[in-house]
Amino acid sequence: MQSNPHAPANLFNQIAPAKAMQVSVLGYSNGCLELTAPLQPNINDKGTAFAGSISSLLVLAGWGVVTLRLQEAGIRADVAVSRSETDYKRPIRSDMRSIADVSNGQIDQLILDLTENQRGRIKIQSRLFSQGKRCADMSAHYVVFPIKSS
Amino acid sequence: MQSNPHAPANLFNQIAPAKAMQVSVLGYSNGCLELTAPLQPNINDKGTAFAGSISSLLVLAGWGVVTLRLQEAGIRADVAVSRSETDYKRPIRSDMRSIADVSNGQIDQLILDLTENQRGRIKIQSRLFSQGKRCADMSAHYVVFPIKSS
Repeated sequence: MQSNPHAPANLFNQIAPAKAMQVSVLGYSNGCLELTAPLQPNINDKGTAFAGSISSLLVLAGWGVVTLRLQEAGIRADVAVSRSETDYKRPIRSDMRSIADVSNGQIDQLILDLTENQRGRIKIQSRLFSQGKRCADMSAHYVVFPIKSS
Repeated sequence: MQSNPHAPANLFNQIAPAKAMQVSVLGYSNGCLELTAPLQPNINDKGTAFAGSISSLLVLAGWGVVTLRLQEAGIRADVAVSRSETDYKRPIRSDMRSIADVSNGQIDQLILDLTENQRGRIKIQSRLFSQGKRCADMSAHYVVFPIKSS
């Protein structure tokens, strides 16, 4: 059996910084993707999580959930963030978890746009938690292009 | 002679992801900090620079230039981003350079706030280039707290 390059366990295999950050998938169900990363490879000068790692974990959750939802619909697509806003609410001193989900309505609209225009857009909210507290939020716009079969 | 932990060459020594990204300082003069990072440790599934690395390099330029300007004024401070907006303009297929600068007026106001309120805020625009083209912009708010001498 051929391995699936987009299956949750190896979703980030081709993203070098995700490996350095030690990002892993905690779960994926009902259109909701949950990721985690430990503090140590993401630590900054203040002994807390580096802002760039926080925004990376948030953008990976959004990117990942759109990629997986499209895969479920049988669509191979490149998903790229075009704009993001990040709100850093408090310092993080432990493991981080990020969560993003996509509604059926959002995915249906995206698939319609891809079919009609060969290009789509989707806005995703992702959230980041540590030690039970909400620590950061991201709102990001992603552009999506179907990958042509060769 | 004791080494200076905030000198440009080792500005990011205590930020683990900056090492993984292979960030280095290209130059610092006239209140302007320029950083660079190679593509390979920052590559994504599309063979271009990962969005999280782009935002990290932009936030490090802003964080770094504020830290260095305060250091020049004899102020040791923790600088932390509280909010950022990133605009990803085009895919990046080579080394990246990020640039951020702070005006004398901005730094004077920040120092005044730190003196009067023991806390300050500053907004920094940083820009990212690759192969001579502007590829991403960030507008970020940083909060600043003086480090008390022990």
